[in-house]
Amino acid sequence: MGIKYVYDFGEGNREMKNLLGGKGANLAEMTGLGIPVPSGFTITTEACVYFSENGAYPPGLEDEISKHLDSLEREMGKKLGDADDPLLVSVRSGARVSMPGMMDTVLNLGLNDESVEALARQTGDERFACDSYRRFVQMFSEVVMGVEGEGRQEGKLFENAISAIKEEKGVTMDTELSASDLKELVGRFKEITRKESSREFPTDPKEQLDLSIKAVFGSWNNKRAVDYRKLYKIPADWGTAVNVQSMVFGNKGESSATGVAFTRDAATGERVRYGDFLINAQGEDVVAGVRNTEPISKLSDEMPEVAGELESIMETLEEQYKDMCDIEFTVEDGTLWMLQTRIGKRTAAAALKIAVDMVGEGLITKEEAVGRIDPDQLDQLLHPQFDDGAEYEVVARGMNASPGAAVGKVVFDSNTAESKEESGEDVILVRWETTPDDLHGMVASRGILTSHGGKTSHAAVVARGMGKPCVCGCDSLRIDEEDRRCTIGGHKVKEGDVISIDGTTGRVVIGPVSLVEPEVTGDFDTVLSWADEIRELGVWANADTPEDAARAREFGAEGIGLCRTEHMFLGDRQPIIQRIILAESTEDAGDDLATLLEIQRKDFVGIFEAMDGLPVTIRLLDPPLHEFMPDATDLEVELAVAKERGECSPEEIEEKECYLENVMSMVEANPMLGLRGCRLGITFPEEYHMQVRAIMEAALERKAAGGDPRVEIMIPLVSIYTELEVLREESEQIIEQVFKEKGTRIDYHIGTMIELPRAALTADEIAKYADFFSFGTNDLTQTTFGFSRDDIEAKFLPLYLRRKILVDNPFETLDVEGVGKLVKMGVELGRSTNPDLKVGICGEHGGDPRSISFCSDAGLDYVSCSPFRVPVARIAAAQAALEKKAKS
Amino acid sequence: MGIKYVYDFGEGNREMKNLLGGKGANLAEMTGLGIPVPSGFTITTEACVYFSENGAYPPGLEDEISKHLDSLEREMGKKLGDADDPLLVSVRSGARVSMPGMMDTVLNLGLNDESVEALARQTGDERFACDSYRRFVQMFSEVVMGVEGEGRQEGKLFENAISAIKEEKGVTMDTELSASDLKELVGRFKEITRKESSREFPTDPKEQLDLSIKAVFGSWNNKRAVDYRKLYKIPADWGTAVNVQSMVFGNKGESSATGVAFTRDAATGERVRYGDFLINAQGEDVVAGVRNTEPISKLSDEMPEVAGELESIMETLEEQYKDMCDIEFTVEDGTLWMLQTRIGKRTAAAALKIAVDMVGEGLITKEEAVGRIDPDQLDQLLHPQFDDGAEYEVVARGMNASPGAAVGKVVFDSNTAESKEESGEDVILVRWETTPDDLHGMVASRGILTSHGGKTSHAAVVARGMGKPCVCGCDSLRIDEEDRRCTIGGHKVKEGDVISIDGTTGRVVIGPVSLVEPEVTGDFDTVLSWADEIRELGVWANADTPEDAARAREFGAEGIGLCRTEHMFLGDRQPIIQRIILAESTEDAGDDLATLLEIQRKDFVGIFEAMDGLPVTIRLLDPPLHEFMPDATDLEVELAVAKERGECSPEEIEEKECYLENVMSMVEANPMLGLRGCRLGITFPEEYHMQVRAIMEAALERKAAGGDPRVEIMIPLVSIYTELEVLREESEQIIEQVFKEKGTRIDYHIGTMIELPRAALTADEIAKYADFFSFGTNDLTQTTFGFSRDDIEAKFLPLYLRRKILVDNPFETLDVEGVGKLVKMGVELGRSTNPDLKVGICGEHGGDPRSISFCSDAGLDYVSCSPFRVPVARIAAAQAALEKKAKS
Repeated sequence: MGIKYVYDFGEGNREMKNLLGGKGANLAEMTGLGIPVPSGFTITTEACVYFSENGAYPPGLEDEISKHLDSLEREMGKKLGDADDPLLVSVRSGARVSMPGMMDTVLNLGLNDESVEALARQTGDERFACDSYRRFVQMFSEVVMGVEGEGRQEGKLFENAISAIKEEKGVTMDTELSASDLKELVGRFKEITRKESSREFPTDPKEQLDLSIKAVFGSWNNKRAVDYRKLYKIPADWGTAVNVQSMVFGNKGESSATGVAFTRDAATGERVRYGDFLINAQGEDVVAGVRNTEPISKLSDEMPEVAGELESIMETLEEQYKDMCDIEFTVEDGTLWMLQTRIGKRTAAAALKIAVDMVGEGLITKEEAVGRIDPDQLDQLLHPQFDDGAEYEVVARGMNASPGAAVGKVVFDSNTAESKEESGEDVILVRWETTPDDLHGMVASRGILTSHGGKTSHAAVVARGMGKPCVCGCDSLRIDEEDRRCTIGGHKVKEGDVISIDGTTGRVVIGPVSLVEPEVTGDFDTVLSWADEIRELGVWANADTPEDAARAREFGAEGIGLCRTEHMFLGDRQPIIQRIILAESTEDAGDDLATLLEIQRKDFVGIFEAMDGLPVTIRLLDPPLHEFMPDATDLEVELAVAKERGECSPEEIEEKECYLENVMSMVEANPMLGLRGCRLGITFPEEYHMQVRAIMEAALERKAAGGDPRVEIMIPLVSIYTELEVLREESEQIIEQVFKEKGTRIDYHIGTMIELPRAALTADEIAKYADFFSFGTNDLTQTTFGFSRDDIEAKFLPLYLRRKILVDNPFETLDVEGVGKLVKMGVELGRSTNPDLKVGICGEHGGDPRSISFCSDAGLDYVSCSPFRVPVARIAAAQAALEKKAKS
Repeated sequence: MGIKYVYDFGEGNREMKNLLGGKGANLAEMTGLGIPVPSGFTITTEACVYFSENGAYPPGLEDEISKHLDSLEREMGKKLGDADDPLLVSVRSGARVSMPGMMDTVLNLGLNDESVEALARQTGDERFACDSYRRFVQMFSEVVMGVEGEGRQEGKLFENAISAIKEEKGVTMDTELSASDLKELVGRFKEITRKESSREFPTDPKEQLDLSIKAVFGSWNNKRAVDYRKLYKIPADWGTAVNVQSMVFGNKGESSATGVAFTRDAATGERVRYGDFLINAQGEDVVAGVRNTEPISKLSDEMPEVAGELESIMETLEEQYKDMCDIEFTVEDGTLWMLQTRIGKRTAAAALKIAVDMVGEGLITKEEAVGRIDPDQLDQLLHPQFDDGAEYEVVARGMNASPGAAVGKVVFDSNTAESKEESGEDVILVRWETTPDDLHGMVASRGILTSHGGKTSHAAVVARGMGKPCVCGCDSLRIDEEDRRCTIGGHKVKEGDVISIDGTTGRVVIGPVSLVEPEVTGDFDTVLSWADEIRELGVWANADTPEDAARAREFGAEGIGLCRTEHMFLGDRQPIIQRIILAESTEDAGDDLATLLEIQRKDFVGIFEAMDGLPVTIRLLDPPLHEFMPDATDLEVELAVAKERGECSPEEIEEKECYLENVMSMVEANPMLGLRGCRLGITFPEEYHMQVRAIMEAALERKAAGGDPRVEIMIPLVSIYTELEVLREESEQIIEQVFKEKGTRIDYHIGTMIELPRAALTADEIAKYADFFSFGTNDLTQTTFGFSRDDIEAKFLPLYLRRKILVDNPFETLDVEGVGKLVKMGVELGRSTNPDLKVGICGEHGGDPRSISFCSDAGLDYVSCSPFRVPVARIAAAQAALEKKAKS
């Protein structure tokens, strides 16, 4: 007996997601719990993987399917395609993780010209039977036979055929078409399919099933699914399972219905049932936003018994899953059937509220609560909102489908969204409703506005997942896509006009609204405080100004891990540093150095004040000097033109030439690898001396004012221990001098960035002269890969990601195999000679959850990230600690 | 009892060089062999190190010196400064390795106004005594009291005093001055010293001794010594020993003499005694080249007995040292005294001949012979010689002091030599004679020409050590330094005129002579063949043309480790590659690609032919594309000027703008880390495909012609294994296609360069797709340090070396601690997944002996270097194998 590829719903449980997919495992779980689920079976993901690799079923699968189908037919007492009592089935994809709408589904399978008659007889509803047949032929043609139709936009052959027959019959609504009209329509559909696919529509239900299963397997590798996997970093080799399930019908009349619901409010997290239903409809009608739905709270008005049963099932599911669940159900002739359940997607705010509530309800522990928050998703809570003080007119309202506010230019299609975004514009995607084909446009947009669909519509679900602001179902939005314009609440808007949307409240404004940064409050704070109890890693922030430092502290930063001083040399200070650079000697630069010392001291006083009592790591000047100078090419062009015009005196020309020569002498072939960082400090010691003095004078000023400054001086770009040895010694001399002058002293630390491979490789030597290491993983990634970030992100990195030469952008997620190896080596070697060494990371990776998990493994003491990422990092650090605990 | 700091000559032996210095250890050795050596003692290098660090003698040293002095006085039956029978001593430096003339010496120490009278009485030669006293006062004043004098050029106070007294006395020669004239001169000298140093000349001989010892210790850190150490990579913490030895006098009349000699010819290696002597002179007169010397072969004419004794001592020394020795001797009143011996410096040719001869004589083994060759020095044999076919007039002849020929502009001082060399000019340093202060000028020159001094003069010894051509003692050279001109053989030459010299023959030519590259023959070949028997590392060459490949093969290269294909795209081929780069599509580039394919195939056929039967590693296109394009700044200036002039039509302007935009789009912030190497191959596959096809078509063409091409295709700049995976697959497809087209196949290998840290760190993954690794240590050094070679060598590397932040230039000698760690890691990881992996190095380090030793330790299979370095690498590889054997 070989591998088992097919499982009856009775055979599995929710732990078997990898094999049965999420949908299959959850159907099995519900079946096990005695919840009413239409019978069926699941073909495993392993079968899909085999199929993807070999283009054919694995040996034995065909038999297995056949056997399970037989047993399904026995159980249901019906037969697929039977001329008397036909069994109809759905064929649905179901991967390990939910990929909503990305892969294909076939419903009503088993109908043909014979069985449709039997179905009519069995149900006594010929129109229902014919409508089901019509839907099946359309769906099968589209999904399995590749005929384009509704929802794909490229062609609308089936929709046009419906419109045509309605016109012929003189009716306006689909529901006005009679059974015989629908039969005629089926004939026309089959004709379309024959023409488009050059094949006959298959009448044998077993052939239909076989083709459908293969189509679902194949849809694992369609473009939408591949794009989605890339966005959510889902491995291509997971595959999808296929669920074959007996059909139930929500469109069998007024005692039938279909709906989707969440056991709690997916937007706010409140403990209320949340969702929509439609009487006399199939599930796709709800999800596609085609008809306007009723809120789930109304179900008890329409079907009180069903509503009660549903309520009790939702209770059971929350008990069982210990989480908010998302369900799909159908009521057929007054009988409730559950078609799906899974852990429900939610906004970040809802995730926090649900986690906090469930801890309160005793359902889960604090650790579980912290563990289930997606730190990346929290970012959406840290997105801007409309400024309360701003004046604006709300011209329309829609559903508050995904929180956060956005301002951007209106675009009406995803390709335009993408191209405008690439040229640096902020855009808002404005659509009737989005489809899975709009994924790239949604990624490119600042926010999404739709005229149709509810909170469970495609746009809403996907936008929430992405953390993009989204306003849905904005009734007063009328789009004229062809003419590239729309009206919103009666106001005319054309493509390129700016609008603002607020996905937290559903408001839409014409023109820009000023936005404010959010604060961390309530449930977020609660979860963060739990995270702080759990985590071992410190969370610090990168901040260059007192304002940034203050914000970082509000967000919970426990120190400044990187204060870049070069930003302090721009603006009106630039002429001063330019003069210093061009000075022939230290004496010539004396006055300017003194001026800069004053300015820098004030900068540092402000930062020490904002971070009183917490460590402030100040990095000495890092960038190459030419960054402070004008562009040499511009000067060269200017000089050439000036000579050409002959308007300048020979002296002016000579002066320009001399200046150009000075600037040219600073130009480097590869400035990233040139005269910068500590190399500057060694070559032109006066700048470093000035900075060290400014730092210490500022600290002593704060101390005199009763403050508690914690000074950490960081020397960048060390590759040889002697660089640090020399600069540490010089710095200490200056510090001692300042102490002597001021008659007082404080503790301080001097450390270095580890941002070059050689620094990591020789960290044992370097650590002898360092109180701390801070891994500068941006530069370390550049030199380890030999990638100049400025150059490659535009040139070949997109291609590398597309061709999967790289799985992740190493500037976003730390490259564990290469850069990570150096980090680990650096930590181990450093601590081997200096056991007290404090070790952190201050590259952008410090705010990336997967990288934080690595930092925890590598034994770092802290991560430092941008102020807005601090809360994210606190959660991620706690999760890293939980993972570590689970492993040990 | 503390540390022993002073050793009598009887207490040591030649193994104790580290402690006693070379001179001290060898004096002890000779004393032990019963060879006549004037008695004395050695103060250890440890005492010097202590003195350098603390500015004072170590505790106990003063006592020890005092005791050893007592015992010396007892042994000699004389007392320092004694009014009856005074002991005179010399105080000489002596480091572990010889540093000729770099440190200070004091002779005739012990003389004062009293003891000089006693010396006169004892020797019955008042003039001799007074002359000795005069010399002592001058030397002591210069060396110990810091009064500048002869040989320093800055001042000539003592020389002027001598001239003045000669004028007063109406004489022209020093020797015409009487004893009382000399006494008067001593008085004047003391007056000069008092004035210049503001101190009295010390009359107490013990104070003289103490000050002299301290001065010699101090001279370890004088500028010349520090420069010399830097040049020869001698650690600063070795220190120098000080030898205090009783004086003997070669200037006591016609039965006295002094001389230096080598036991074999230091220039050719021939088995003849080689050197110079002077009757009635002190040793310094010989070395300084002040008087014209007699060849040592003449000694038997003048002093047959002494000559016989000397011959037998030289015999003994060669027996004992099993090497060619360099000796200094003095004959005092017919008695021979040995003042020094050491292993003699020699030209590379002499080193080879001596090694080969001594193996023949049974003195040493082949391994010892190979082990004692300095591979770096061999480079001088690979220097150019006058072209035999060239027509030129020899206007003068001097001594063939250091072999090789040079062409350059005449300069008359070292500072000018240095500054002209820095501005890219070839210079010949033309001097009366060089002094240790000329070291930097000699380094800067292509060759050295002097009018005075013999083969053991300063210029000759130092030039041989440096491997610079040198012609010495050219009588017909008359220099007018002030007017910046000279005559050579009667021809007028001014500074900046070009001359040619041949240090192998002593010829001097006015104007340039065309030079030819040398071949490896005779003893060199013999030693190389022994080296080949010993070595384990393969020695390959980097060569880009059939000519280079042929030369490399002549020099013994066993393969081509790096054939750069980008050089093949320059010259008249550049427009073709430019058109390919600017083509919008592969179709547009089709014709040009086909042209380039033809050209490349021919290139490769030539190289395969030259290296028939040996591996040829061809690297696919590596540099960033903009290197093939004109400079963007130039274009921008051109465009601005064109617009300003208004002479171009709008169409021409637009065309220029479009072209500029194209070129600008290729400009990168850090091209070293940008779109180059395999990244090009992935982004624009057609160039790589063309190259792979050209290589294989060439190989099959050679095979069809009966050749044996060994194809190794090398893919550069891999940092991720997937890059190699993809490119290997594409290459294999093309190769299979070529095989199919030609109906035949050959073996081939595909490998990669390991030249980025990440490649070394993930070598286990990469090795799965590589047949070989070649460490590109130039780029690996750049990325490991974060050093852009183009930028740092001019900007801060010299400072880093001067301040000892770096000990070596890591682009010359492989950085074992950092880059070396990556190399070792790369080798180990690579072989862990691919045990058959062939591993080599093709960076410039492949020709550096110390780096070759590291490569041997790291387990590499071969090194690849420039063709001229191949013989050097063969010797270095053999020595590495010997070291390895010695260690195991």
